[in-house]
Parts: sequence; C-alpha cells; structure tokens
Amino acid sequence: MGLSNSFPYRIGHGTPGPKNLITDVPGVTVGHRTLRDGHDVNTGVTAVLPHGGNLFCDKVMASACVINGFGKTMGLVQVEELGTIETPIILTNTLSIGTAATAVIKYMMARNPDIGGSAGTVNPLVCECNDGSLNDIRGLHVKEEHVLEAIEACAETFEEGAVGAGTGMCCLGFKGGIGSASRTVTLDGQTFTIGSLVLANFGSRGRLMIDGHPVGREIQERIERDADKGSIIMLIATDLPLTERQLKRVARRAGVGLSRTGSYIGHGSGDIAIAFTTANRVPHSSDTALLPMRMVSDGHLDPVFDMTAEAVEEAIISALAHAKTTTGKEGHIMKGLMEFL
Amino acid sequence: MGLSNSFPYRIGHGTPGPKNLITDVPGVTVGHRTLRDGHDVNTGVTAVLPHGGNLFCDKVMASACVINGFGKTMGLVQVEELGTIETPIILTNTLSIGTAATAVIKYMMARNPDIGGSAGTVNPLVCECNDGSLNDIRGLHVKEEHVLEAIEACAETFEEGAVGAGTGMCCLGFKGGIGSASRTVTLDGQTFTIGSLVLANFGSRGRLMIDGHPVGREIQERIERDADKGSIIMLIATDLPLTERQLKRVARRAGVGLSRTGSYIGHGSGDIAIAFTTANRVPHSSDTALLPMRMVSDGHLDPVFDMTAEAVEEAIISALAHAKTTTGKEGHIMKGLMEFL
Amino acid sequence: MGLSNSFPYRIGHGTPGPKNLITDVPGVTVGHRTLRDGHDVNTGVTAVLPHGGNLFCDKVMASACVINGFGKTMGLVQVEELGTIETPIILTNTLSIGTAATAVIKYMMARNPDIGGSAGTVNPLVCECNDGSLNDIRGLHVKEEHVLEAIEACAETFEEGAVGAGTGMCCLGFKGGIGSASRTVTLDGQTFTIGSLVLANFGSRGRLMIDGHPVGREIQERIERDADKGSIIMLIATDLPLTERQLKRVARRAGVGLSRTGSYIGHGSGDIAIAFTTANRVPHSSDTALLPMRMVSDGHLDPVFDMTAEAVEEAIISALAHAKTTTGKEGHIMKGLMEFL
Amino acid sequence: MGLSNSFPYRIGHGTPGPKNLITDVPGVTVGHRTLRDGHDVNTGVTAVLPHGGNLFCDKVMASACVINGFGKTMGLVQVEELGTIETPIILTNTLSIGTAATAVIKYMMARNPDIGGSAGTVNPLVCECNDGSLNDIRGLHVKEEHVLEAIEACAETFEEGAVGAGTGMCCLGFKGGIGSASRTVTLDGQTFTIGSLVLANFGSRGRLMIDGHPVGREIQERIERDADKGSIIMLIATDLPLTERQLKRVARRAGVGLSRTGSYIGHGSGDIAIAFTTANRVPHSSDTALLPMRMVSDGHLDPVFDMTAEAVEEAIISALAHAKTTTGKEGHIMKGLMEFL
Repeated sequence: MGLSNSFPYRIGHGTPGPKNLITDVPGVTVGHRTLRDGHDVNTGVTAVLPHGGNLFCDKVMASACVINGFGKTMGLVQVEELGTIETPIILTNTLSIGTAATAVIKYMMARNPDIGGSAGTVNPLVCECNDGSLNDIRGLHVKEEHVLEAIEACAETFEEGAVGAGTGMCCLGFKGGIGSASRTVTLDGQTFTIGSLVLANFGSRGRLMIDGHPVGREIQERIERDADKGSIIMLIATDLPLTERQLKRVARRAGVGLSRTGSYIGHGSGDIAIAFTTANRVPHSSDTALLPMRMVSDGHLDPVFDMTAEAVEEAIISALAHAKTTTGKEGHIMKGLMEFL
Repeated sequence: MGLSNSFPYRIGHGTPGPKNLITDVPGVTVGHRTLRDGHDVNTGVTAVLPHGGNLFCDKVMASACVINGFGKTMGLVQVEELGTIETPIILTNTLSIGTAATAVIKYMMARNPDIGGSAGTVNPLVCECNDGSLNDIRGLHVKEEHVLEAIEACAETFEEGAVGAGTGMCCLGFKGGIGSASRTVTLDGQTFTIGSLVLANFGSRGRLMIDGHPVGREIQERIERDADKGSIIMLIATDLPLTERQLKRVARRAGVGLSRTGSYIGHGSGDIAIAFTTANRVPHSSDTALLPMRMVSDGHLDPVFDMTAEAVEEAIISALAHAKTTTGKEGHIMKGLMEFL
Repeated sequence: MGLSNSFPYRIGHGTPGPKNLITDVPGVTVGHRTLRDGHDVNTGVTAVLPHGGNLFCDKVMASACVINGFGKTMGLVQVEELGTIETPIILTNTLSIGTAATAVIKYMMARNPDIGGSAGTVNPLVCECNDGSLNDIRGLHVKEEHVLEAIEACAETFEEGAVGAGTGMCCLGFKGGIGSASRTVTLDGQTFTIGSLVLANFGSRGRLMIDGHPVGREIQERIERDADKGSIIMLIATDLPLTERQLKRVARRAGVGLSRTGSYIGHGSGDIAIAFTTANRVPHSSDTALLPMRMVSDGHLDPVFDMTAEAVEEAIISALAHAKTTTGKEGHIMKGLMEFL
Repeated sequence: MGLSNSFPYRIGHGTPGPKNLITDVPGVTVGHRTLRDGHDVNTGVTAVLPHGGNLFCDKVMASACVINGFGKTMGLVQVEELGTIETPIILTNTLSIGTAATAVIKYMMARNPDIGGSAGTVNPLVCECNDGSLNDIRGLHVKEEHVLEAIEACAETFEEGAVGAGTGMCCLGFKGGIGSASRTVTLDGQTFTIGSLVLANFGSRGRLMIDGHPVGREIQERIERDADKGSIIMLIATDLPLTERQLKRVARRAGVGLSRTGSYIGHGSGDIAIAFTTANRVPHSSDTALLPMRMVSDGHLDPVFDMTAEAVEEAIISALAHAKTTTGKEGHIMKGLMEFL
C-alpha cells in the first residue's frame, strides 16, 4: 500500500490516490507469482492488466521511452508504431522472456479465437530485469503456468517488495523488487490519477537518495561498497486522455524520478519506461474509420509531468521500503533497506 | 495544375482532386517569389500556408520523417515534440535558411504581439535544397522581403516547375523544382484529400522512372552521364483527422513515392517529409485542459498510405514536367524533361 | 543461388558475388529447418550466423531500421543501444518468437557458462512474419529443437523459396519465402560484399514490379485480386567496416529495394531491416578500454547504398522466383510466380 | 573558473580538470559577446569552437539528445545523420537563431571558398533559450557582427554567469546564464576530460537542489513563488575517442545532471544536449574510403556517464553561482543566487 506512515521520509509534495498504488487508476490490476525455494530459486512473474476487459479487442493507448536500451523488453516495436498495448504487461527475469511471451500468446489465443486467423497476430509486451545475483537465472525456473497464475492473481491490491518479478532483484545496494505509488492531478475540475509500478534492480548503495537526502552515502560508511549494475522497468498508468505523443512525453519523465533516487543511468542498465492511458481506447477493428478521442492541451501538462516524476521516484523508494532481506543463490544475502533506517 | 493531359504517362491508379495540387486540401495555399536575373541568380522562396487563419493561435497537427538527414531543415525538433506547425512553411535555398527564419519570426511577431512575451516564442519551419549548380548560392540573394512576398502570394492556384524555391533546382538530371499533386480517399462515405508539394532536387538522369517506365535509361543513351546529388523536401497535407503518430506514418510513405521515381536516397540527399492535417487543430493556449479530437482507425489507413505514395510520386514527376530548360550560373544549362519526351 | 540465368529479368546494374547470396560475405552462413506435414503445417525456422565463432564473445556491429513497426521482432532495443548482435539471427513465424527466444537463450548458455552469471545476460534477436494463411500458426508447431536444427544446418549454401521460415509465407500475391542476393563494391582497390536475405511476406499481386516492369498488373488480368497484407524482414550483411550510424543508413536503404518491388509499406506490414558488418568486431569484455576500428568515409557510401537497395530488391524477387506453389492450411493454394512467367 | 572554493557546496565526488571548464578539453575554446544597454537589452551570443582549426575540413564527431523538444535548436537533423559538427556552436536567444545562422554561414563561406560550390553546403549549429523576461527579445538586438565577435573572442578562459547568450537568462528562480565544469576520467592509464557548458534558463525556485540539498525550498520560504519555465542547452565536450552512438549515450546522461538540480523537464522547456569528441576527426572529403578511428569499449563507459552527469550538474550550479543580480526589461529584477547563500 505504498510507503507506510512509519517510513521516515515523504517523497515530494503531491497527493497520492487512496491506495498509493498504480491500481488507483480505475481498472488497472496487478498480480504476482513468486518462485522461491529457500535456496537458489528466487524469481517470479508480475502481471499488470491495463483494464479488466478483452485487451486485444479494446486496446489501451500507450508509448514507451527507452532511457537506456541495455535490455530485452519485447513488444516495443509495435507499441511505437501503433501506439497501443493489447496484452497483459508481463515482468519477469531476463532469460524467461521467451517463456513469458509464449504464455501470453497462448493466453491471448484462448480468449480470441480469431488470433492467428482473421484478426492477425498479437504483440506480447514482456519486460525484464536480471535477477542473476540472487536467483539461479540459468535454471529457467519460470514456466508458462506461472505467467498465467500471475495474470489470474491480478487484483486492485497487491504486495510490494520481494514478490513476483521482484523476488530476486537488487536495487541501490539493497534488496529491490516491485514498488508502486500514485499521484492525483486535477484538470478542468476533474481528478485524474497517475500510477507507477516499477521493477527496481539498478544502482549502487552509496548513491541512494531519498527525497534529496543522501541516505546511501551515510549507510555506506557502515557497510562495504558494491558495484553499479542492473536495470529498471517503469510502468506508468493514467486515466488522463493523452495521445501517444503525450504518453511518450510522460514516459520520458520517468527518468527524472529515476535520477532523483541516485541513478546515473549506468551502461549496463536496461531502463525502460512505458506509459499507457485507460481513457483513449482503440478497438482492434472498427467498422467506422473515424474515431473520437480526447487529448490534454499540452500547456496543461506540467502537473502531469511533475507527478509522474514523483510517482516513479516514490515507487522506487517503496520497492526498497518493502523488500525484506533475502538469502539467495549460493547463500548470497541482500539486506533490506529497513534494517538500516 | 498537376500533370497535363498531354503528358505521356499516368501515375498510379488513384483519383486526383479537382486541381491535382496540394491546394485541393481546403484552406491550404501556396505562393512563390522567384529570383532570376538572367545570369547567376536563379533562386527563390516558396511558402505553404496550412490554413488562412492565424497559424500561431490555431496550429495544425503535424509530424515529420527524416528519410535522409543530410539537410538543414529547421523547426523539426519542436514539430516532433509538440506535434504542431505554427507558422507558414518556407522552402528556399540552403544558405538562405537563416534569412527565411528571421523573416518568418518578424512576420509572426507582427501578427502576434504576445510572441516574445506572454505567449513564449515561435518555431519557424524552414526547409531547403541546394540550388548551387544553377544559382549563385554564395551570393545570398534571398532577402527577408522575398519571404514575405512569397507568403503574401499564397493562393489556391500556383505555378509548378522552375519557380519560387524551385527556380534553380535540378532533379534526376533534368531541370527540377516545385511539383504538386493530390489524391482523394473516401472513408465513412466522406471524401478526404491528400495533397503533396515537393521541392525536387535529387537524383541522376539514368535512374528516372515514370510510373515504372525506365525513361531515364532511354534518354541517357542520347546524352552524357551526371552524378547523383541533391535533396528533396516533400510536404503532405490532408484534411483527414490524423494524430501525430499517424502523420508520421504518412510522412514515411513519401519515401515510397520517392523510391519509385528513381532515387536510392543518396548519401548527399537531404530527404525530408513533413505531413500535416488541417482537421485536428491545436490552440496555442486553452482555458480547458481537455480537448476533443478525432483519429482514423489505423486499420483504415491503407488507402491513405497508398495515395500518399502516389501523390508524392506524381508531384516529383510533375516538377519535371513543368520545369523548363534553364541557363544558370556560369552559363550552366539544365534541360527540361519535356524536351526529351 | 540467387536468380537463375533462365529468369527472364535482370535486377539493376550491379555485380553479384560468386553465389549471389548473403553468404558471399565471408563467414556468414544460413540454415533452415522446414516444417511441412502435407496438410496444415507449413512453417519453419531460418537461422543466420554472422560468423562462425562465438558470437557472444565476439559480437558484430549492427543497426536496424524499423520501416513499419507492425511487427514483433525482438532484440532491437539492445541492438539500438549497443550497436551489436551477439546471437544467431532467427527468423520464424510470429507466434513462435517466444519459443525461438528460449531456444536461442539455451543455445547461448550452453556455449557460454558465464551467461546469467559474471557475463550478464544475452539478447536473442528473433524476427518474424505471419504465415497464418498457409500454416496452422495457432498450433505453435515450431519447437525449440527446430531452432537448434536450423542453427546447426547453417552453411554457405542454402535453399531459397518456400523453406525454413519462408515455408508458409506469401508475397505480392504469390508464394513467398526466403530470398537472397549479393552485390560487390570496390573501395580503395578492395572488393567488399553486400549481401541480403529476406523473409518476404508482403504486398498484393497487382503491384508486383520486377526491375521496373509491371509484371503484377499483367498477371492480375488473368487471376483474381487479393488483399495487401503481411510483412518483410530484410537482413543486410557486409564486410565493409561501417559504424553503427552507417549501418543504420544502410538499413534504411532496404526500404528503397522494397518500394521498387511494389510495396507501399502497408499498415499491417512489419517491415524491419537489420544491417550488420563482420568487419568491426566488438568483444563482450575487454581489458583495454580503447579499441581500434575503421569506418568508411561517408562521401564514399553512395555505391554502398545503391547496391544495398539493389541486393534487397533482387532478394525479394529471388524469393518469388524460387518459391514453388504450395497447398496449405484448409487446402488454401498459393501459386508460385514461375507458373506465370 | 568553475565553482569557487568559497562556494558552500561541492558537487559530486569526481575530479575537475585544471580550469574546471569545458575548455579543459584540449582545443576547445569559448567566447562571448554580451549585449546590455542598462535598460531593456539583456542578451548576447556565446560561441564554442570544438577546435582551433578549420572545422569544415576537419569535423568533430558528435551526437545529440533531445530531452524535451520545445526548442528551436537548428542543425540537429544533419548532426544525427552524419554524426559530425562542422561549424562553431552558437548559443543565443530564441528569436535570433536566423541571424546567427546567417552569420555562421557567412563566416564559414569566408574561410571555405568551395562552400556553395564543389564542397556542397554547410550546416550551422545554433542553439537557443528564451531570455524574454529580462530582454526585449522582440527587438532582435543580436546582429550578425555580434556572432562573429563571439567567435573571435573564443579563448581557453571565459566568464560564466550573466554573459554572452546567458546575459538575460533565468534559472530555477534566480539569475541564470552560462555555466561550465569539467571532470577527468582515466582509461588505460590515460587521463581524458569531459567538459560541460550550459545555457541555463529553466525551472522554478522552490525546486533548486544543490548536491542533494533542497536549497530552493529553504529560500522559497523567504521570497515569493515563481512559475516553472524556460529551457537549457547542455554541451558536452570530450577528448575520449567515442563513436556517434556512444556520444548519444553520453548526451542522454546530461538529463541526469539536469534532474539533480531540480528540473522535472517541464513542458515548455527546450532541453537539448549535444556531445562531441575532439578525438575522432572526420575529414570533409577523403581520397581514401577507409578511415581509422577508435572507440571506447562500452563496458568501460560507466565512469564516463557518471562524470558527464556530474559535470552537467555542476555547470548548472556554476551558472547560478556566477550570475549576478540583473535588472532587465521593464525594470524586472532577477536576483543572483549568491545573495541568498
């Protein structure tokens, strides 16, 4: 449920939604399947459903920003061309993307008998980070059924931290994983929500900043150094009626939130931001050629950009705040941030 | 007025608008200022007005595709970010872009006293090709008043060939310049128009193809070889309600029309396509944050892409068909295509 | 072996390499695994190896151009960021990309025990087209072992037409599939090769152009119309020492060759070009930070661009020339072009 | 000379070059022409010369990153395509870009008689921010001779703050302008330099962060609020032998430095980063086609990225630290940061 009241820092100045989660955007749900055997297996799958209907028939408008492309996220070529997402968004470990893609394809075919026939094919959107320091990633422990279980687990409330795809992730020298946050903005008297969910797996300990405080530098004096590495997937959902161009602008602001937490966007980091709106729906096929839609006047976007950066920043910190100390592959221990605050 | 009935080839299979010009798109006008002194000066300015109102207050939605970026077109950074054009589009020779930009800035300031103050600044869109083989381009003969005269000359009918910015251009080994064409498409029972205007200054003679006929190869047997060089600006206007993403898709199809005429997109070519729609207007500032707009369902875009490629192809051929033999700098003669057909 | 001497058209004016195949680029090999059961299964896998060594340790420099992004090709995010290919390039049907990715990951792990550990992860490059009109694509008949078999089958000579990934493809209203061609260019007295391999699955019959001849239009008068659809993957290999920026320029010229054969880059087409060079190798890790490399002066690239367009154009025609009439899913018959010439 | 020792904050942990200026990169020089009449004129020009030779004949390798494209920077189309800078880099106010472009064109023609003839044309690189709150920007006070004077003033030492193009700029609610900094990195035992020069004109007061300290928030309690607006140009020079792809990666890290100082990359901001290297030179024309060059193994780039972010961050703070309180257009006063520290 976002950062708890007992967490010693507040992030920014905006107003969170009721759950302070990406699921504050109406219709968005999140589910996890955690794989943990007490030894070398520490991985999993997280699924994000942009809405509860048939995503293939009723796509959501979307865009992405590749902040640093040392990553294997699949599906972005078509998101860029068509400006839509048409499947659940799956997060998992890097070497399991093929398995996740196949699982999504089967899931979509089961619900849409015309896929592969009259409706053409389907574009699975699968994102990843490398959990190889805590997880036996070479073991390919994620199976297709785990992906389906994550999709089936999707709900408005969900856990953060070392769960789902975040089970084996490390971030800023601490145990990382899944984090989420939300912010509201008011336009034309209506309240809209910007929600963020991250799979946080980047950075080195000494750099951690929390709301401008050099927390990492202070902790580093107590424990040994670590190298900068890893990646982050940053999803942004909103019910604001944005166009694809505007969603790309929003996705780019994820990099601001990321920078604030201590990343300098390292070479080895696959830093990918994907933004979608539940407000401008795109049908798979349409008898009429002309479709109505809405956009936000760009001159009104500053609070949207501001709150996007803040929601991403808080989601990263929330991942750290929730992720508990984990013993992983070969007995490697990654401590949770809360042991130091 | 597009290709005349006496021209020995038909381009493609589509239906042109009544004038077979970019100005078949309602509201679009074109004006020239030709500079020709009978000796070394063979240059000029062509202006395209997306509509007859105040472009700064009432912008048109737009996008561009840089097919080959060996060119100096200015204004594209903001077109890409904001998806709008807010000034006349100016075409001129390469070394006159600064002068043209200043002229546009002054023109816009005169009509918008708040530019430079409360309304922020303005983004001049200036495109160019190098007419240095027929024109004393080092002489910088284009002056600010010539730009204004081209804007003031804007009308629904206009000349093609060696006029305006096309005065000194060469294309496919013949005299090049300004060409235009249009095609109609019907969606939801409504007829829409796709218009193209090109500044054609690329290619080598032996490669000229007209509707699939290797016309250049045949002519080449009679006259000497020439080198491939030069550039092309391809403007596409439409009254279809397209989004910025869709306009970029349309702009990309300009490269198909270009390829069909015999270009392989040479290294030295600045091949730039810019597409705009008069249908989705964007106000400079808006009291309300949420704006209605329309888009075309992407599944209905194939005839739009098809007719875009064809309109660009025909506009290039029309430039050649209209451009008369010209004697330029240092007595250099560039013959018109019609002398060979 | 490219277009046979009996084929009634010559493509362009350049000089092919000895085999007129992508494998004229030294080190490049190609292998197929064809899946055909005489009924509904008509699909397969084609593998391209940029060189015969360990691709992960000794990467090839590469870049891609997404000409139309209605496609699911995976791996391009990292190719764009790092400018390298580090695995075999796999071509298969759209719904089998996940399976192919997993197969590549396992293949790479088997040869590189440090993947998933100290060496980080690996970026499988998997390209696809939709063979759903002749193949039971929903049956997911491609298995991991088929991908490995295609890799193991890689050799300097290989079949074209309805083989491997091309087994079920259709192109320009005829049976499509795998085609290849090559061209040589001489720079600084040295001969270099540009090779192309395509998976051709796009277009409609009436549009087929062969070296400027409207062959499709003529054939169309004899048989019924078909719709435009499908995609094309265009691989370009060279031993020219190009940089990533230059390889992107080369990849973009694939669109010229594509346009010449009759494509207007339809909405539904995933048109992807990927270019790599075997000349500028990039080690996975390097003790020394500074690496020597070579580039071609951009002013010398025109013959490279010209021959790229031509090699891609010929590869597409070669796919049609080699692909034999195929009876596929539900008895659907797609005739080979050679039945009409 | 960068931040003085008396400045109360240190930025980051890296080592500056001897001058802590962009001119620590050997060969790079900077010159200003300040225009200030004591009343409404507060503007100017800043020129950056990548090296002291003939830039047209001996280009520097370069790339850019448009972080937010609400800006009018010209020249980027060609920088992206060819990966080179071939003129002085000019910074000035937004409405003077045309004048600056013409001045650069004349300057280059005077030194290169073949421009406009056998050598083709030239690509002026002109960057801008809007100084309209302190300067009568509508007055177009920058003349061509001012641009030439800035170029002629180029030297290894130069002033920071409210000088040159920075004369009328505002940043983070204080007087902004020109700032610079440098950092060194050691690779293969050799020391290389990364220098940054910014034209800082963005942000709102309450957001100013200095090395993680919320300085703006504290000052805001004493003075009134202001709106977020404006832009930033960030130049990065280095003598590391990077490729164009790597220079784009470097340019992208400028956004990290920018984010750290308190920007969320507002809608109205033209945030442009341009990186060039003096190490990989590109001749305008070359008799030999094959050119040697060097690159840095990407695995060694982390310190480069880290120091780029830090140099940009410090350059921004240095602009604030040097810019003195200025009274401008209509008596509008913008206070220097040092009055509050």
